[in-house]
Amino acid sequence: MSQEIGDSKGYSKEALEMLARSNVTIGDTITVLTYDDEISGILMPRYESADKHHLVVKLNSGYNIGIEISKVKSISKAIGPSYQKLPFKTFNVAAETSKSNLDSKLEETQQSSSVEKGKLTLPKIALISTGGTIASKIDYRTGGVKSALSAAELYESVPELAGFAMIEPEVLLNEYSENLNPKHWGIIARKILEKLRTEKYRGIIISHGTDTMHYTASALSFALQNIPIPIVLVGAQRSSDRPSSDAALNLIGAALFVLKSDLCGVYVAMHATTSDDIIACHIGTRVRKNHTSRRDAFESIDTDPVAIINGENLTVQPDWSHRMDIQKTLNSDNKNGVFMIKPDFDPRAALLKFHPGFDPGLISHIAASGYRAIVFEGTGLGHVSRDCFREIQKALDAGLMILMTSQCIWGRTGMTVYDNGRDLIEIGVTPLSDILPETAIVKAMWVLANSSSLESAKKLMQKNIAHEISPVSPII
Amino acid sequence: MSQEIGDSKGYSKEALEMLARSNVTIGDTITVLTYDDEISGILMPRYESADKHHLVVKLNSGYNIGIEISKVKSISKAIGPSYQKLPFKTFNVAAETSKSNLDSKLEETQQSSSVEKGKLTLPKIALISTGGTIASKIDYRTGGVKSALSAAELYESVPELAGFAMIEPEVLLNEYSENLNPKHWGIIARKILEKLRTEKYRGIIISHGTDTMHYTASALSFALQNIPIPIVLVGAQRSSDRPSSDAALNLIGAALFVLKSDLCGVYVAMHATTSDDIIACHIGTRVRKNHTSRRDAFESIDTDPVAIINGENLTVQPDWSHRMDIQKTLNSDNKNGVFMIKPDFDPRAALLKFHPGFDPGLISHIAASGYRAIVFEGTGLGHVSRDCFREIQKALDAGLMILMTSQCIWGRTGMTVYDNGRDLIEIGVTPLSDILPETAIVKAMWVLANSSSLESAKKLMQKNIAHEISPVSPII
Repeated sequence: MSQEIGDSKGYSKEALEMLARSNVTIGDTITVLTYDDEISGILMPRYESADKHHLVVKLNSGYNIGIEISKVKSISKAIGPSYQKLPFKTFNVAAETSKSNLDSKLEETQQSSSVEKGKLTLPKIALISTGGTIASKIDYRTGGVKSALSAAELYESVPELAGFAMIEPEVLLNEYSENLNPKHWGIIARKILEKLRTEKYRGIIISHGTDTMHYTASALSFALQNIPIPIVLVGAQRSSDRPSSDAALNLIGAALFVLKSDLCGVYVAMHATTSDDIIACHIGTRVRKNHTSRRDAFESIDTDPVAIINGENLTVQPDWSHRMDIQKTLNSDNKNGVFMIKPDFDPRAALLKFHPGFDPGLISHIAASGYRAIVFEGTGLGHVSRDCFREIQKALDAGLMILMTSQCIWGRTGMTVYDNGRDLIEIGVTPLSDILPETAIVKAMWVLANSSSLESAKKLMQKNIAHEISPVSPII
Repeated sequence: MSQEIGDSKGYSKEALEMLARSNVTIGDTITVLTYDDEISGILMPRYESADKHHLVVKLNSGYNIGIEISKVKSISKAIGPSYQKLPFKTFNVAAETSKSNLDSKLEETQQSSSVEKGKLTLPKIALISTGGTIASKIDYRTGGVKSALSAAELYESVPELAGFAMIEPEVLLNEYSENLNPKHWGIIARKILEKLRTEKYRGIIISHGTDTMHYTASALSFALQNIPIPIVLVGAQRSSDRPSSDAALNLIGAALFVLKSDLCGVYVAMHATTSDDIIACHIGTRVRKNHTSRRDAFESIDTDPVAIINGENLTVQPDWSHRMDIQKTLNSDNKNGVFMIKPDFDPRAALLKFHPGFDPGLISHIAASGYRAIVFEGTGLGHVSRDCFREIQKALDAGLMILMTSQCIWGRTGMTVYDNGRDLIEIGVTPLSDILPETAIVKAMWVLANSSSLESAKKLMQKNIAHEISPVSPII
């Protein structure tokens, strides 16, 4: 029962058959039921050069989203009134995100600030609160800090924000970040998708405890592929009701980055110095909390911050604005830059820091306990003692992925320089270049949930997905 | 059978009885047999204020060593000819090490460079080789680097050293440092004792692989208490037979530090910059390899390097020359500054880095596997997820010591600020201030081998032994 499908050249035979069976054509408003979600919107045309594994649907908010065809259970025409009621904007994500000039972005911001019903309409930013110091107050009973402040209270405590954006706060979680786990990463990613479906936000700010903010930033970087807006994680080293709190400036910096830069992706915005003046915006996979208490605890590793916000001035590192453009072609799963969400993580990965006297028995225990991967923090260029080789070999034989990072933090693994490194490669250990150990354990959990085989998992671990691997520069 | 004992007021009743039973008096040349060593020399008098747990013996080299009375098996007068043959110098360690003026040290160096048998006698430095890149050559067969060069070859490759010191090289081990374990730390410590027994060295340089040099430096800092000379670990990031090797300058810097500073203790000397010009000398317990490949990979954490060597000029940080003086009073076991060796380590300590998705089952496994301590690399101020609390409680109940450091690397744990930290303290977790995680695992192994009870072990972990805990400065 063949049937005419609009401009369907970009879709595979398999996809076209599925669309035909479902009696839908390009341009139809459809509801796609997948194994873990239900997505509604307009079925979009695709370019012939596009990959063949995804449908693309324009959400009510105007953003496009890719849906893996292999995960589709059913497609139906949406006729219910709910979709008709929602304001539909034919907002072109691709056109907007390709603008690389800051001025054009600012101009656009001013244009969109139109007078509507006698009120200035400012760009919208969603503020999702997950807990942590930024959302905490001192408990005067115990003297300690409690995770308590709501996103609304937070917004009220930083009235400066009201001047240049409409902040829509929402409390999603109320946890210190050391209590967050990979399930929470999925919850946050799905909440971001929900926001993108219903409203055209200029960006989303996530307030988060600083302890594991870099882990969550990595997780969202992998889970939210080609997100068409900036997602900025922001925290505080001092609680919001203290006079010395860094919360306000971090929030303002995050908002200015959202409004003034044209970069999409996942970032961390925190103090760049110990003074209350400059904010640095870091790539989500290349940032680390390097001090227990200082305001400028967060540092970009093996790279500069993406942007610096000083007062109301934003400076994007020229190198980064270039690299953010090429990022889309680097993205292994998603060559044509369609936004997709992959929010699942498999926590069966262990992070082991090697040290002299390290007990190889730990490796055997992990191999026998249902884990699927071990990320080592090796020494130097990526080494462990020869005493561990037999247990590593056994773990590899048992089908675990054994991944190598360096506890040096800065610099790249180099496992072909010394005997031990070469022997580890020989037996099947996978070196991870300069992926940070913290990013590597998050990526391993994500790869395990998103690979169909051990071999494809290993390949994905070594492929640059979200700037977690820096371009190679000459050794100094 | 009471008997006259020279100037014996500083010895305890128990010690005096032991000396009387052995028929020895102060000033006698004696041989002390302990459970793991045999030490010969002259029985020295003690001050009344000295601690009562040690005998002090002047070694043939002139250095004094403390011997724990509880470990003495027997004492006998040494009458054999071997001791009479060795030149005996009444060299006063205390007098020499108390000189805090660099000029007086240099003057002394010049005085000791006397003409003997027509040959200039330079100060002696022992060079103990343990392997690693500094002692390695490129293997032209495989293209990799092999640990191969002898200490003698090393010395020959840096002829500059011959100008200002007599280097006595010795190959002790030939291992990449990732293969070294706590037993090797004991072997190196005992070799240093052997050197100190037989010869008056101005200092000892240990050539070592860089991968775990900071772990060994920590181990020697705890094992060699109040060592009366400087011990300087030195490595190379590029092998010695490469034109770009950093080996020569690191060695020269270490030798100049030994000759020109008057600091004792354990240090690491490595490049301070990426150029081949300036060497930084770091406290053995406060240094970390922070880059996989750069020459200036080693950094002092939460403090400045002790000294900088630029050309032939040595600058000691004023703050450190002050703190090295007060160190002796900080040393818990050894209040009166007597040199003692405690070379044993118990490897039954695990280092666990917490991360989101960390499996609390690992804690249970370790508690059930004969371990005696867990050092956590917690997040931020020293946190782990509440999901781990039950297993931590069980491990504590099983008699393990649970110690907390921070994976931030810089900064201090602060476990009274947040709920989770306070609760961990409440159940019995021991916070380790700003002890580096790498130093903490080494110290835990040392403390386990040198404590008689769990309570004394916990106390010793929190006590500053070898600058592993920095003085508290105001939070920035």
